[in-house]
Amino acid sequence: MSKEITARDKDYSQWYNDLIIKGGLADYSAVRGCMVIKPYGYALWENMRDQLDKMFKDTGHQNAYFPLFIPKSFLSKEAAHVEGFAKECAVVTHYRLMNDKDGGGIVVDPDAKLDEELIVRPTSETIIWNTYKTWIQSYRDLPLLINQWANVVRWEMRTRLFLRTTEFLWQEGHTAHATAQEAVDETLQMLNIYAEFAEDYMAMPVIKGVKSANERFAGAEDTYCIEALMQDGKALQAGTSHFLGQNFAKAFDVQFADKQNKLDYVWATSWGVSTRLIGALVMAHSDDEGLILPPKIAPIQVVIIPIFKDDEQKVRIDEKAKDFVQQFKALGIRVKYDDSDYARPGWKFAEYEMKGVPVRIALGVRDLEKNVVEVARRDNKTKMQVNTDGLATTISVLLNDIQLNIFNKAKSFRDENIYKADNWEDFEKLLNGKGGFISAHWDGTPATEDKIKELTKATIRCIPLDNPMEQGTCIYSGNSSTQRVLFARAY
Amino acid sequence: MSKEITARDKDYSQWYNDLIIKGGLADYSAVRGCMVIKPYGYALWENMRDQLDKMFKDTGHQNAYFPLFIPKSFLSKEAAHVEGFAKECAVVTHYRLMNDKDGGGIVVDPDAKLDEELIVRPTSETIIWNTYKTWIQSYRDLPLLINQWANVVRWEMRTRLFLRTTEFLWQEGHTAHATAQEAVDETLQMLNIYAEFAEDYMAMPVIKGVKSANERFAGAEDTYCIEALMQDGKALQAGTSHFLGQNFAKAFDVQFADKQNKLDYVWATSWGVSTRLIGALVMAHSDDEGLILPPKIAPIQVVIIPIFKDDEQKVRIDEKAKDFVQQFKALGIRVKYDDSDYARPGWKFAEYEMKGVPVRIALGVRDLEKNVVEVARRDNKTKMQVNTDGLATTISVLLNDIQLNIFNKAKSFRDENIYKADNWEDFEKLLNGKGGFISAHWDGTPATEDKIKELTKATIRCIPLDNPMEQGTCIYSGNSSTQRVLFARAY
Repeated sequence: MSKEITARDKDYSQWYNDLIIKGGLADYSAVRGCMVIKPYGYALWENMRDQLDKMFKDTGHQNAYFPLFIPKSFLSKEAAHVEGFAKECAVVTHYRLMNDKDGGGIVVDPDAKLDEELIVRPTSETIIWNTYKTWIQSYRDLPLLINQWANVVRWEMRTRLFLRTTEFLWQEGHTAHATAQEAVDETLQMLNIYAEFAEDYMAMPVIKGVKSANERFAGAEDTYCIEALMQDGKALQAGTSHFLGQNFAKAFDVQFADKQNKLDYVWATSWGVSTRLIGALVMAHSDDEGLILPPKIAPIQVVIIPIFKDDEQKVRIDEKAKDFVQQFKALGIRVKYDDSDYARPGWKFAEYEMKGVPVRIALGVRDLEKNVVEVARRDNKTKMQVNTDGLATTISVLLNDIQLNIFNKAKSFRDENIYKADNWEDFEKLLNGKGGFISAHWDGTPATEDKIKELTKATIRCIPLDNPMEQGTCIYSGNSSTQRVLFARAY
Repeated sequence: MSKEITARDKDYSQWYNDLIIKGGLADYSAVRGCMVIKPYGYALWENMRDQLDKMFKDTGHQNAYFPLFIPKSFLSKEAAHVEGFAKECAVVTHYRLMNDKDGGGIVVDPDAKLDEELIVRPTSETIIWNTYKTWIQSYRDLPLLINQWANVVRWEMRTRLFLRTTEFLWQEGHTAHATAQEAVDETLQMLNIYAEFAEDYMAMPVIKGVKSANERFAGAEDTYCIEALMQDGKALQAGTSHFLGQNFAKAFDVQFADKQNKLDYVWATSWGVSTRLIGALVMAHSDDEGLILPPKIAPIQVVIIPIFKDDEQKVRIDEKAKDFVQQFKALGIRVKYDDSDYARPGWKFAEYEMKGVPVRIALGVRDLEKNVVEVARRDNKTKMQVNTDGLATTISVLLNDIQLNIFNKAKSFRDENIYKADNWEDFEKLLNGKGGFISAHWDGTPATEDKIKELTKATIRCIPLDNPMEQGTCIYSGNSSTQRVLFARAY
């Protein structure tokens, strides 16, 4: 089984696709650029979604649901937004099919043309702010803290499973506030929640920062982001949180009366993460044998595999296994006992390695007689004999240790791959070498940023939030600069 | 507040709309036929969804996600299916917008026309069975038990909030089996789960039955359903479970090798419930003062409202209220303490009555000194003084009692509104009177069913599962009949 995975150093891109397909996370579909999220991948998404949802609710947000379709004219109302989103999108023009009179099967009914085309939402700011107009009259209606879990469609020319698909699943938070400061605070609060989720649950270290003007969300005053580093030295934007100022409130005329009954436009934020996170997770931790999933979000945390020679042994192992399963479940451990008879233990070992299950327990009769089991860790591939007394507690502690170890490994890798470049030659050499984040001076102009991107394909990933001020000269233009920013090639 | 609701006997339809809008469940949107599900309505849906999801998983189903879009040609592959679903649907014909050269704003780019149009899924049998083709090779791959939570679009001409909207949220289960019997068993298992959910959680009694051929799902061999009765005497189909035979397997060429390595087509089921259930819930229980929600799925089960004259009193009540909130939460009770200062207690009482919160607790200083609180039930509008010792336990028991009472009331109403008609005159008189389910003999032919529908707008809701055989003559044709079936006008 594991032999079928392409090695990372041979073809990183193929390695990634192999993991997704052979690990059972997703599959290609018959629709261009769209994928099928398979049960194992969807269970992973459910664990991620449920944790994020809890964090959103704990900070006072409520879920709601807005229409899939956006009238074409809505997209034009915010000038920057339409530039960013109106280009590549799915357009509904008709609402009926009919049988072709000439026997050509079913065809679009030309009489069922919509007066105004509908766009399948690429993001929902416009339809939501058009709704908020009727929900917000006074300061009493604020803050409005709403999140939506939904599918969105962006017509991508080049797609990759999870990382860039025409349709994807995500959450989009859309909040409305009485003051700019409150909206900025919300923007940063949600950025921190994303960072906490990425690090504590996905075991993926991230850098929090703010985007340059070029990389800003279409319609935002400021876009904050979390950036992660993949094993091939490329960066990946894992989540964004936008301070939208009064842009959408003005575009959709959303005003509120303050305590003095004075009218003002509402301040807004929006923030989102998507199924793209699964792509990041896979690329951050996995190895040439398959996926490596952090225990906190792994659909199966522990798999138990029986090793037996005959039915008599199987009966004894079954009994013990069921006992363990109960003990594990009582501690909230997600466990699977795989006693299916279609495959031998060795095949199963490889299969669950491929699927990134954090802990594998092999149950053999001889071991059980000695009150021990063989426990194998997926993350560092070590095996150990563990006493069966208090096994559930032992495994629980082990899962925490694995979670931490996966994070530390990814953090070491990330920290080792942040470089400083002080001249163009070093900058290019680093980029063309191992990649990573390159901390370098930039003169602050979009023109320079564009030129650097054109020459190297590297973009400014972010200006880190805790960035120290430092006098220097721009890596490209030689003009003066007040701080370094982080460059990288990115997904 | 409550004055604004239209009375049921004045205008039932307007009463329903008032409840949805003023109860804060949903709102109209700028997109024709689509609605916005507001936070309170969505929280209700989340409770329903989570419970159903648990029941699906407890019976071995896994969630997955399939594309929103279906290639037009897929719809044609199953002959009956295309007749049922290809007519009124949203058709994506283009994938790009552009700035109009003549200054007409953004327009569809004529160069970005799709080779094959994409249909926004009205249901997913076709795209799913096209995928199953690659997932199923052998009996080892069966049964395949998959569910999807998703949005779907059917271009409805006349829409009503929750009951019939162009876009709605639902779940659709799609399972594949090695034998016809196993698929039939699955179909019935899911029907039973729907009935259990409707009765035990929504407190809505349902009749389980099978549809006549006319009312069958397009592409099914048999459609089973649960039918509920609304307060205006009209029936509402609350969920369906279909035995699809080998129709989709044949249409998409999905065969499996059995243990003897013999190839056969796979047997299928599909089953679904949708946000329509919320409309049913509202119409089944509510009254002229507002919503009545069953405790098990109510977003807020208990609201606590402080009654005070000055800040000193408020401080004392706050302290006690926070204590109660903690005690309630410890028992898993969903409680809200509404000490907002924008409204007086009387206004809040009416507001939470409107929202259907099962229990209201008024906290006043004088009561607290006597160690009592005033508890009001939403379902029967009774009030009582309750001792504060062990209040959480008392409320917990009360919530169970309310759940049961709401069910019993709906069940009495339903049972009182099942009538027998033995001739056409009685049949019409009953229909034009209070409505309800009318149990009558039918000759079993689609032609008679059509004629009855044409004359009365009544349809055969179902042939109940436990229907006794009984010789009789058809209400309309006078031909002989072997059993009664249930007729009703329906939503």
